[in-house]
Order: sequence, then C-alpha cells, then structure tokens
Amino acid sequence: MRARVHVSLKPGVLDPQGKAVSDALGRLGFSEVGEVRVGKTIELELEDGLAADAAEARVKEMCEKLLANTVIERYAVELV
Amino acid sequence: MRARVHVSLKPGVLDPQGKAVSDALGRLGFSEVGEVRVGKTIELELEDGLAADAAEARVKEMCEKLLANTVIERYAVELV
Repeated sequence: MRARVHVSLKPGVLDPQGKAVSDALGRLGFSEVGEVRVGKTIELELEDGLAADAAEARVKEMCEKLLANTVIERYAVELV
Repeated sequence: MRARVHVSLKPGVLDPQGKAVSDALGRLGFSEVGEVRVGKTIELELEDGLAADAAEARVKEMCEKLLANTVIERYAVELV
C-alpha cells in the first residue's frame, strides 16, 4: 500500500520560494502567471496488510510529528 | 484559472531527502514505512480568459524551461 501526503503552506503564510518562481517566470516571458505557491508531495511505501483506516491514522500521526510543520503548513493524506 | 504542477524524481534516481525522511520515521517508531520519495507541487495562478489547451501548453513550456529538471525529474500538469 502507498500513501501520498500533500503538504502546503496555509493561506496567508508568505511563500518566498513561490514568489521567486513567479518572478523568474515573469522574466522568462510568462506574463500570464500571477501568484505561485510551492508545496511538497511525500510518497510513502507502507507494509502490506494494513487496513486503510489504520494506515490513514498512522500517516496523519507521521504528518503531525515529522512531515508537516502544522503551525504554518496544512496536509492532506491520500491512500493510493 | 489555476494550474497544479507535480514534479517528482524519475524512477531510479536516488532521493536522499526521501531516504532521510524514511530513516527519521523509522527512528520515531513508524516501522511500517518503507521507501519514501519527496516531490514538489507548484500551484500557479494564471490570468483568466486562457483556453485550457493553450494554458496547458504554456505550463508545459514553463516546466521544460524552469520548473523541472527534465534530466532527473518528470512532471505532470493539471488544470484546476
């Protein structure tokens, strides 16, 4: 079983990396681009035999403890 | 209109960041975790009035020129 975790900055949190990408795209001639925000996707291989709801709960625990900084980031867990 | 770009390492390319996450999860007691791979998600705000196929072509051009290193990374574009 695999899990995919999407980690992104909460709305309102400044994203300097996104700003740099947006500026660079503008300089390259992509003038149609406005705000850009950059997030992370973490794909985890989980051992087989885990129930889906147990796996989801464990991955959420991983997010709270390590994968996301919940002060400024939000996360979404998807089992695939 | 918004576009979401998923950038991930090609299969077979070593992912030291993913390895570090996997090791750290193991040390925290999440022994059910195997391989971990870390990718990026880039959300772009595009000006309104662009046709979907034109927007997708432009975003792919952005990926080739700036957003992805196509030697070691692959990307997927999604309009949202």
